[in-house]
Amino acid sequence: MSRIVMKFGGTSVADLDRIRNVAARVKRECDAGNEVAVVVSAMAGVTNQLVAWCQGLSALHDAREYDTVVATGEQVTTGLLSIALQEIGVESRSWQGWQIPIRTDNAHGKARIVDIDGTELIRRMQFGQVAVVSGFQGIGSDNRITTLGRGGSDTSAVALAAALKAERCDIYTDVDGIYTTDPRIVPQARKLAHISYEEMLELASVGAKVLQTRSVELAMNERVRVQVLSSFADVPGTLVVDEDEIVEKENVSGIAYSREDAKMTLRRVPDRPGIAAAVFGALAQHNVNVDMIVQNVSADGMTDMTFTVSKTDLARAQVTLAEARSQIGFSEVLSDPNVAKISVVGVGMRSHAGVANTMFRALADKAINIQVISTSEIKVSVLVAAEYTELAVRALHTAYGLDGA
Amino acid sequence: MSRIVMKFGGTSVADLDRIRNVAARVKRECDAGNEVAVVVSAMAGVTNQLVAWCQGLSALHDAREYDTVVATGEQVTTGLLSIALQEIGVESRSWQGWQIPIRTDNAHGKARIVDIDGTELIRRMQFGQVAVVSGFQGIGSDNRITTLGRGGSDTSAVALAAALKAERCDIYTDVDGIYTTDPRIVPQARKLAHISYEEMLELASVGAKVLQTRSVELAMNERVRVQVLSSFADVPGTLVVDEDEIVEKENVSGIAYSREDAKMTLRRVPDRPGIAAAVFGALAQHNVNVDMIVQNVSADGMTDMTFTVSKTDLARAQVTLAEARSQIGFSEVLSDPNVAKISVVGVGMRSHAGVANTMFRALADKAINIQVISTSEIKVSVLVAAEYTELAVRALHTAYGLDGA
Repeated sequence: MSRIVMKFGGTSVADLDRIRNVAARVKRECDAGNEVAVVVSAMAGVTNQLVAWCQGLSALHDAREYDTVVATGEQVTTGLLSIALQEIGVESRSWQGWQIPIRTDNAHGKARIVDIDGTELIRRMQFGQVAVVSGFQGIGSDNRITTLGRGGSDTSAVALAAALKAERCDIYTDVDGIYTTDPRIVPQARKLAHISYEEMLELASVGAKVLQTRSVELAMNERVRVQVLSSFADVPGTLVVDEDEIVEKENVSGIAYSREDAKMTLRRVPDRPGIAAAVFGALAQHNVNVDMIVQNVSADGMTDMTFTVSKTDLARAQVTLAEARSQIGFSEVLSDPNVAKISVVGVGMRSHAGVANTMFRALADKAINIQVISTSEIKVSVLVAAEYTELAVRALHTAYGLDGA
Repeated sequence: MSRIVMKFGGTSVADLDRIRNVAARVKRECDAGNEVAVVVSAMAGVTNQLVAWCQGLSALHDAREYDTVVATGEQVTTGLLSIALQEIGVESRSWQGWQIPIRTDNAHGKARIVDIDGTELIRRMQFGQVAVVSGFQGIGSDNRITTLGRGGSDTSAVALAAALKAERCDIYTDVDGIYTTDPRIVPQARKLAHISYEEMLELASVGAKVLQTRSVELAMNERVRVQVLSSFADVPGTLVVDEDEIVEKENVSGIAYSREDAKMTLRRVPDRPGIAAAVFGALAQHNVNVDMIVQNVSADGMTDMTFTVSKTDLARAQVTLAEARSQIGFSEVLSDPNVAKISVVGVGMRSHAGVANTMFRALADKAINIQVISTSEIKVSVLVAAEYTELAVRALHTAYGLDGA
C-alpha cells in the first residue's frame, strides 16, 4: 500500500464527463489499496474568463482581489470531483488552501508555498477518505487567499506530496510523458521511461512546457518522485527521479527548442573593466532578464557584446540601453527577434567528451550557422536563425541516436 | 455620518458594466460621508450553472460539497466589485464568510447564521475602507463553507447590518420598492413609502417575492431598518420599519396573491377528538406543510375537513393520506390545484372592524366564490378559483381605496 498524490490539469477536468473519468482513475488507485490525495486545476477556460473579468475592470487590479477571484476556479473543481467520487462509492472531501492550510508568503498572484500542514489529511487518508485539494492556491499570513501564478497546480501537487511523504506524485496531463523532443517536429521522438530532475529542469527552462519549472525544482529539493502521464490514454508515463535511480544513463536525453528569445548586439563597446556590469546592471534595474551572453575578443580596445532577452522584454531593453548609451558608450544596438534557441540536455555529458562537438558538426552539416553558444554542466544551447528550428532539432535528434527504432 | 449596509442581487451585478454601476452607487454613499459595507450575490446565472453541475454529477450530492461549489459565485463578485471600487478611488476589500467570520450552524445548503464578528470590519470602515462581503454564505463549526439557501443574500445583509449596528440596510433589486399590489395586475398600484415589518412578513409569506421571508423576520427581531430600492432607477424606495415609525397607518397596506397552493378536502371524517391530530400528524411526518385549515360543523357524527398544501407537496400528501385512510376513516380525498390565495394585509386591521367584511362584499359583488377563509391579526386570506386571481386582486385594490390618483 502506498500513499500517492494525483494531479489533474484543466483539460483533464474540462467538463462533467472528464471529471467522471478522473473520478474513475482515482477509484482505481484506491481499489489498488493506495491512500490518495488529488490536486486539481480549474476547468479549462474558467481561469481565463476570471482573469479577463479582473482585467476588464482595471488594468492595475489589486493582486489580492485577483487572487480572491481566480482561486474560485479550483474550488469549483474540488467540490465537483468530490461529488463524482462519492457517486461511485469513494469517500472523499474537498479542501481549499485555507482549510488545510497551505501557507504561502504574501506575494499575491505569484506566491510561494511556505508550509503545508498534512496532519489532518493523512489521518483521514488512513481511514480511506480521498483528499481533493485545490491546486494553485494557498493562504497568506494576512488570512487572504493567495495564488501561485499560472501553472502553479504542478507546484501545489509536488509540495503536497512532500508534506504527505507520498511515494509518488502523478501529474496527469494531455501528453503521455516526456519525449526526447517535440513529436510534432520529429515523429520518431521516443517517450522516456525515466528522466533525472536536473535534465527535466533544463528541459523545462528551455521550452518543454509539460511541467512548471518551479515544480521540478521543488521535486528535486524535496526528492519527490514525479510521474508525468496521460489523463486520457492508459499507458505508462515518464518518471522524473533522482539521477541515481536511473541505471542506463544516456549521454543526451532530449532536444528542446524555444522561440521566445530575441538577440541583441551592442556594437563597438569600449573594452574596459566594469563595462559588463554597466550594461547588465541597467537591464536588471528595468527587470529585463538576460539569458545567453557572449563577448568577442577586443580589437582597437573595442568589442561587440551579444546576449538574448525574452521577446516580451525586447522593447523595454531597447529603451533602457538607448538611455544608458552615453554612459556605456557603444556605437549601435542591433536587435533580432527571428532567432531560436536549440538545447541538448543530458546528465551523461558530465562524463562524455565530444557531446558539444557532435552538436556543432551536425548543425554544420546542414549549413546552419550558430550565432551564440552557451553551456551548463548538462546542457549545450545554441542560438540559430528561427527558420532553421525544425531542421536543427531533427538533425540533432538523429545525430545523438535518439530516433526510435 | 451613518453606517449603512448596501445589498445588490444577481441582476444588479450581472456583468462588468453593472458592477461598475454598483461601484458608482457605493462611491456616492461614501462621498456623502457614510461608512459602507456591501453584500453581493453571484452574477446572474452563475449560481444556476454551478447548481446544474452538482446535479449533473449526482442527484443526491453531498450538501457540503454543493456549498463549496456554489459559494464561489459570491466570492467572484466580491473580488470584482472591490477591484471596480478601487479603480474609481474607493478603498475597499473583499470578505468571504470564513474570513469575517460569519458563523452558521452546520445545516449545509440551508444554514442559519449564528453569529457575525463585526469588529474588524467596523475598525476598517471607520478608516474609510468599504467592506465587500459575500452574501449567502458562512462557515460552520466544522470549518467548512455553508450556504443559507436560495435568496439567502438578503438575510446575510440584514444580519450584517445588525452585527455592524448599521443605521439602515438598503436592498437594491430590480423593482424599486414595495407596491400595494403587483403592478403587472393592477397598473394603478402605488409604491409604499413605508411598511411595517409585520406587514412585510405577511406579504412575503403570501407571495410578494421582493424580500426573502427569513430576512424580514430577522430585520424585525433585530430592529434593522430595511430599505428596498432599485439598482437601476434613481428613485426613493420603500422603508421597512417598526410600526411605531409609521405615522399615517393605512387600514390595508397591500393585496398579495399566490398560486402556489393546492386545496385538499377529506370527505366524511368521523368527528371525534384526536382526528385533526391524526390527519395533520401524518402529513407533518412526511414533511408536508399545511397552511389554511377549515372544518365544517358536524352532521351525523361526520364532518368535512379542507386545507391547503404547497403544490409541490400535493402528490406526497395524497399518498400519505391514502396510506392513513383506514386509521383516519374518511370516505374520500378531493384535490384541487386550480386555486389561488388572495390576502389583504394591514396593521390598521387591529383597530378597525369591518376590514374582512369589505373583502367579502367586494368579492361577492364580482360573484367570486370564497372556498376557504383564514385570518391572522393583520391579514385576511381567502382561497378562490385560480381563474379569478386578477379579478379578485383588482376588485380588492379598489375596494380598499388603494388605487393611485
